Amino acid sequence: MIGRLNHVAIAVKDLGASTALYRDTLGARVSQPLPQPEHGVTVVFVELPNTKIELLEPLGADSPIAKFLERNADGGIHHICYEVDDILAARERLKEAGARVLGSGEPRIGAHGKPVLFLHPKDFCGTLVELEQA
Amino acid sequence: MIGRLNHVAIAVKDLGASTALYRDTLGARVSQPLPQPEHGVTVVFVELPNTKIELLEPLGADSPIAKFLERNADGGIHHICYEVDDILAARERLKEAGARVLGSGEPRIGAHGKPVLFLHPKDFCGTLVELEQA
Repeated sequence: MIGRLNHVAIAVKDLGASTALYRDTLGARVSQPLPQPEHGVTVVFVELPNTKIELLEPLGADSPIAKFLERNADGGIHHICYEVDDILAARERLKEAGARVLGSGEPRIGAHGKPVLFLHPKDFCGTLVELEQA
Repeated sequence: MIGRLNHVAIAVKDLGASTALYRDTLGARVSQPLPQPEHGVTVVFVELPNTKIELLEPLGADSPIAKFLERNADGGIHHICYEVDDILAARERLKEAGARVLGSGEPRIGAHGKPVLFLHPKDFCGTLVELEQA
């Protein structure tokens, strides 16, 4: 069912410093910062040959990563995103297996303009998993 | 400098249950468990089209992931691994930038038979980073 690893998302407190780290110290290709107010984050994409890293900085008062950064002062990996061909079929399969889908359970339009769902970390080895329709 | 994302490593308490989750619930292709006593883990590789997930269970009394699992009862992402063409040149560039290399600072032979280094999470957005010579 799951296909490509679409991205690894790393929550950071200082997007400028983290972008410079990936660009200058690790020598990776990085995007300009992209504010996504509807998702409560500003994103920088780190383009690797086979996937991407997304550096996420909180944006606005209700950022979904603000609490994570309170608990993880240095930042840290916030979630990983797997692609699926059919997100509704994926959801049904997961629910039948007893896995918990977060929020309303209905796919939302994610940061790449495609339907996404988030799965409960306790059901997935302590890892917040995003599924994105490919 | 960094190239492909070689793998994302997830520490788990129950490798059998985590393997079944990735195989049966998430529908991914998984390997047989591979004990690596020299690294203190048993590994299952989850093969995705563009990279892999490594499920790590502690093996032996001095497993490097045992303390992580004490702090993270459900498991969690332990590290990410980027490939580099020349691990000694990468190390020099990182040290010049003030980043800390863990352990002796000398590359060790990693789980894939290639030289690896680990970098201090505090210098990399709270993320334990492994570099592996490609």
